[in-house]
Amino acid sequence: MSTQHYTVVGTRPIRHDGVDKVTGRAQYGADFQMAGLLFGYVLRSPHAHARIQRINTSQAEKFPGVKAVVTAADFPPTPERLVDLGEGDTPLSYARGNVLAGRKALYKGHAVAAVAATSVHIAEEAAGLIEVDYEVLPAVLTAPEGMQGGASILHEDLKTKEFGEQTGRVSNVAEHFRHTMGDVAAGFAEADVVIEREFNTATVHQGYIEPHNATALWNSDGRILVWCSTQGAFVVRDVTACLLDVPVSHLKVTPMEIGGGFGGKIPVYIEPVAALLSKKTGKPVKIVMSRKDVFEGTGPTPGSQIQVKIGARKDGRITAAQAYLAYEAGAYPGAMVGPGAMCVFAAYDIPNVVIDGFDVVVNKPSTAAYRAPGATNAAFATETVLDEIAEKLGIDPLDLRLKNAAKEGTRRADGPKYRRIGCVEVLEAMKNHPHYKAPLDGPNRGRGVAIGFWFNIGLPSSCTVSVNADGTVNLVEGSTDIGGTRTSIAMQAAEVLGISAEDVRPTVVDTDSIGFTAVTGGSRTTFATGWAAYEAAQDVVRQLKERAAKLWQADAASVTFECGVFRSGDQSISFRELAAQIDQTGGPVVGRGAVNPRGAGGSFSGNIVDVEVDPETGKVTILRFTAVQDVGKAIHPSYVEGQMQGGSAQGIGWALNEEYYMSRDGAMMNSSLLDYRMPTALDLPMIDAVIVEVPNPGHPFGVRGVGEANIVPPPAAIANAIYRAAGVRMRRLPMNPPAIMEAIWNQRD
Amino acid sequence: MSTQHYTVVGTRPIRHDGVDKVTGRAQYGADFQMAGLLFGYVLRSPHAHARIQRINTSQAEKFPGVKAVVTAADFPPTPERLVDLGEGDTPLSYARGNVLAGRKALYKGHAVAAVAATSVHIAEEAAGLIEVDYEVLPAVLTAPEGMQGGASILHEDLKTKEFGEQTGRVSNVAEHFRHTMGDVAAGFAEADVVIEREFNTATVHQGYIEPHNATALWNSDGRILVWCSTQGAFVVRDVTACLLDVPVSHLKVTPMEIGGGFGGKIPVYIEPVAALLSKKTGKPVKIVMSRKDVFEGTGPTPGSQIQVKIGARKDGRITAAQAYLAYEAGAYPGAMVGPGAMCVFAAYDIPNVVIDGFDVVVNKPSTAAYRAPGATNAAFATETVLDEIAEKLGIDPLDLRLKNAAKEGTRRADGPKYRRIGCVEVLEAMKNHPHYKAPLDGPNRGRGVAIGFWFNIGLPSSCTVSVNADGTVNLVEGSTDIGGTRTSIAMQAAEVLGISAEDVRPTVVDTDSIGFTAVTGGSRTTFATGWAAYEAAQDVVRQLKERAAKLWQADAASVTFECGVFRSGDQSISFRELAAQIDQTGGPVVGRGAVNPRGAGGSFSGNIVDVEVDPETGKVTILRFTAVQDVGKAIHPSYVEGQMQGGSAQGIGWALNEEYYMSRDGAMMNSSLLDYRMPTALDLPMIDAVIVEVPNPGHPFGVRGVGEANIVPPPAAIANAIYRAAGVRMRRLPMNPPAIMEAIWNQRD
Repeated sequence: MSTQHYTVVGTRPIRHDGVDKVTGRAQYGADFQMAGLLFGYVLRSPHAHARIQRINTSQAEKFPGVKAVVTAADFPPTPERLVDLGEGDTPLSYARGNVLAGRKALYKGHAVAAVAATSVHIAEEAAGLIEVDYEVLPAVLTAPEGMQGGASILHEDLKTKEFGEQTGRVSNVAEHFRHTMGDVAAGFAEADVVIEREFNTATVHQGYIEPHNATALWNSDGRILVWCSTQGAFVVRDVTACLLDVPVSHLKVTPMEIGGGFGGKIPVYIEPVAALLSKKTGKPVKIVMSRKDVFEGTGPTPGSQIQVKIGARKDGRITAAQAYLAYEAGAYPGAMVGPGAMCVFAAYDIPNVVIDGFDVVVNKPSTAAYRAPGATNAAFATETVLDEIAEKLGIDPLDLRLKNAAKEGTRRADGPKYRRIGCVEVLEAMKNHPHYKAPLDGPNRGRGVAIGFWFNIGLPSSCTVSVNADGTVNLVEGSTDIGGTRTSIAMQAAEVLGISAEDVRPTVVDTDSIGFTAVTGGSRTTFATGWAAYEAAQDVVRQLKERAAKLWQADAASVTFECGVFRSGDQSISFRELAAQIDQTGGPVVGRGAVNPRGAGGSFSGNIVDVEVDPETGKVTILRFTAVQDVGKAIHPSYVEGQMQGGSAQGIGWALNEEYYMSRDGAMMNSSLLDYRMPTALDLPMIDAVIVEVPNPGHPFGVRGVGEANIVPPPAAIANAIYRAAGVRMRRLPMNPPAIMEAIWNQRD
Repeated sequence: MSTQHYTVVGTRPIRHDGVDKVTGRAQYGADFQMAGLLFGYVLRSPHAHARIQRINTSQAEKFPGVKAVVTAADFPPTPERLVDLGEGDTPLSYARGNVLAGRKALYKGHAVAAVAATSVHIAEEAAGLIEVDYEVLPAVLTAPEGMQGGASILHEDLKTKEFGEQTGRVSNVAEHFRHTMGDVAAGFAEADVVIEREFNTATVHQGYIEPHNATALWNSDGRILVWCSTQGAFVVRDVTACLLDVPVSHLKVTPMEIGGGFGGKIPVYIEPVAALLSKKTGKPVKIVMSRKDVFEGTGPTPGSQIQVKIGARKDGRITAAQAYLAYEAGAYPGAMVGPGAMCVFAAYDIPNVVIDGFDVVVNKPSTAAYRAPGATNAAFATETVLDEIAEKLGIDPLDLRLKNAAKEGTRRADGPKYRRIGCVEVLEAMKNHPHYKAPLDGPNRGRGVAIGFWFNIGLPSSCTVSVNADGTVNLVEGSTDIGGTRTSIAMQAAEVLGISAEDVRPTVVDTDSIGFTAVTGGSRTTFATGWAAYEAAQDVVRQLKERAAKLWQADAASVTFECGVFRSGDQSISFRELAAQIDQTGGPVVGRGAVNPRGAGGSFSGNIVDVEVDPETGKVTILRFTAVQDVGKAIHPSYVEGQMQGGSAQGIGWALNEEYYMSRDGAMMNSSLLDYRMPTALDLPMIDAVIVEVPNPGHPFGVRGVGEANIVPPPAAIANAIYRAAGVRMRRLPMNPPAIMEAIWNQRD
């Protein structure tokens, strides 16, 4: 759809970090070594909800090889204030409390104390000698439980915020907000058909392959050095500085290579603990989580209870929509119901809308972002209800969606009005795809569709670009590279400079060596850091024009630059030739780009999925899966496809199998990757990724960001397919064999 | 003398790297560790001059634990071209030959082959199994020997360049050049007194405390990563790339902390060898030199033979001067006689001058820069002859120098005309110093004076500066910090930004992470990289003015910045306050500065020294030593004083004790720090450092550079003092006890 012609953008060069990753040279946080390194072990609460009466660390401290023990009492007594955790502000006491529990343990796995010793085994053994007196309290495990009158209260100081105002009411509801547009009662009155359903989704984890790890050295000069696996080195810097009550510039955070994050490696867990242990010992301290630690001690995505009511006229036009979203925050107030509410009806132009959001604390790990956080839960509800409406009205489900699709100028209930978006284009691509037209024969088979939305974000990013004499450039950036962004960022600089992607050498550096750069998250990295690289490259071009002008004794304003060649009058010189002459024309050329872009453009994603449901076991087999997404402009189509396939795979896991399987007293019963069942290559067909390109007018190359919207539609699309295969409407995730068998049996009754 | 008022410049903050260095945290090259690391050992020639007939490495290769052996045959067969070694161009074959000998070994210690093994002991043992068939040739060890007819010829392809033209004459004289000004014969005819003397100086080593080291990893993606101790990471990058015939951007050089260099860590020795061993093994390979390797295998400063003839009128006005400078290049053509010729009469305004320079290859290690390279040898001659003239004419030696002192507008015989310089100010400071007026009682005691000059250099440097939200900034630079330049560079950024030196966090990064930056050498780092930091900080100020204007909805052109405060109309905001708001006003602020400055200003230095000579042993005791230097503007006076004291100490060692003590067949007999006698704290008095500040008009803060000129006067000043103490004129370095006793005995005869 783009009319621009690019040389580098849109091609598929080999990623710069590829060889190091396949040969094992890439250095991850767990690989970090240093002379005198100590090893930390975190003691975690065995109870989901308990008052901590007393912690006695004296036996542990005496254990041979133990160098230090820390608890929450080792944090500086900083006055309460708000901390930006990289996903919004939270009170300091909550941020600190989640890192090391204070008066209460709020979930099983909540960190309570930590030991540093000469080996991790000594540290673990010594941790067992720490005596913690717990007063065990009743646990609340889901949003509805937490909202019940008489529910056990997690935070005695948490007063419900309602419609933006602080109430005096102490409860587990941290916030209740509402978005309204039009007159929803009048809207439903106009409708010929109204469907209202309730949905429940389980807690799921991002399941990144690499557990969290951190090494910290609290140096004698007061500086704190941290090496860790994170989506945002500057977030680790800023949050850790805040918790330790030192200025941000006292910290240097070096992001090691990262083995997946999906939002779950934005929060800070063990970095401040390692730092406190290092402060006490004067040595570097390394902590590496086990998989059990990851499941029990880090933020999964919220389980939720959702009610959605949609009304439509016979012609398919939606007249009103209402949503009630109660999301589990986990142990501390969370941020995921907000985006859930932004996305629940975001794909449609609906005149009358009410959305109620509830952020409910429960005795589970504090939730974290997970790929389009909150949106998948919400779309599961909306897209399933729409499927029922389409069926009732006898309208093709894609036609129903096309009739109501959001477009440029559509206003969302939470406020924003869309600029150019690709919802219609995604739906049309789905409708025109051979998959949608292909026959689906055989018993117990069905096809479903659904779409989803994620708004994507901007936030600050910085880059510098230095010119080498051999016509290449070095690009320095602060964005952790999770999915190939070194390359997608380098390609944007290469496009500006008229050189190849291979001629740009991108390096992700520590927080001392580049300007502030926000997290790799919100699908922002290729968008925002790519833009910073674009600006840095433009800054190089500006300077090189002056150099060319100097060579030619021409006016710099007369010099043009196109396709890698500088020209003025009859004179011309290529980027490479001029690079060889920068010393003689005035010295090195360094360009800088720093942006805080506002033009983030939302991305729409759709799935067509064919399933077969085994009526004897309830097992769902994915027969065929097509993922369509408007990505704005695909900088590196292979990585875009990879993101779409990855998001689809995770969405399928969420739909069919994944869940925190909890005991009644709040213990996760399946905290290993054997028991927490994520889909493998054997479980999935090849996922067909269809890139739709509706350039984002808010980015120089039209980039929207591609990492998240693709996880939104799968559960709904699969539920709709299951309905057609087995005749049952699934309204609870995961749709695993027992759940499906139960639905089938209920239907037969 | 400066009329500028500064807040940070001229103060004495604690160095940023201080704590890490005193606590042992600082990481030097020898500390570098990596998984799978192999250890290299270099086999060196036992002969000073020999044809290499054959190298058989097969026994070594079979030795258990050995992973690879390399010789010169492993270099790619790149066509001959010139290589910039960081101190000027040299033919590729010479650069390569010095790293691993080809058809000939040209000095004892010349690298011939190298072994990589699982331990350094295995590598060393295996190196002993390498069979090298040598045809031993006669060695030439001094410039006069090398210039003799019939001398053994080192390079059969080396044709003498004479007065800029290539001759067809094969000899050991690589070059003979001449600078002339006026009519020297007429000048001498005008003179009332003419003194002509011959001087000889021994080969001395820089004696840095840390031996050379390098680790290289030739990665599977074709990139070569190097960690090493160097004065110039970009020089290591560019030279190694050239020797290995890969583009410069294929190399990433990470400069580790450096334990001294003084010019001797500009050349590349073991980096390409480690890289070749890594290429063969696929593993990282580390080579660390022993002290013997350092003495025998790296570049010392040239020994020299010098004749100086000076004529003056009775009133002290110098009418003519002539110099003959024959400097040992070592095994390959060198660059040190050039600066020697530039400096020999540089402190004086002399109408008629002839200077002849000879660059002579000899069978000693290829010479390298050593603090004002070439100038100390030359000043030893000039300043001793002037002392004789002053004595003959009955003029105070400082008055004689003042009468002839170079000043703004004086032209040197090699071409340049001085801008504002501080020669007169240095001489006046010496004359007015209490030391010069203090009585010097007691037998065998004498006082001497001398002055010296070094021109200093510019060359490219790059910096970036990023603003932190806490009002501090991060400064990224490419200059290896040897003498505290992290701080002296940071202070210049701090001065511009109106913040403290502690609020600037400087980091020296690898060659991928900053623009090209030339060597830390030529006294250029505080001058040129400081200037780049100044420019980067100015770039930050420009951007912050726009941010302030945005906050105030004012015109950016109306915003002023002074003493750390932005103002427009009634509005004002401090740097720190504005830094906290950069996200809201448009995102991160990154400034860049890249310079290739031409304004390098020369530095003059003078010594007053009191000695006592033991007439029984010839031992010289330094009783009092005053060093005076025009540094332009002293950014950090403590480090300036430290440089002056360090240069003085090295000059004293050179004067009194240090020398390569050579056997007749060209073996260094004292290649350990026990036998090569450098002065220790016990040998020296406190050196009084007197800073003179005549700001350099070619630098924003008036910096000249301070690292080198201070080593130039000590040998001459001490010789002049010895003359007054013992009555002997010393014209050979070192002036050690045997030499002084011999002079005393000769005088008695």
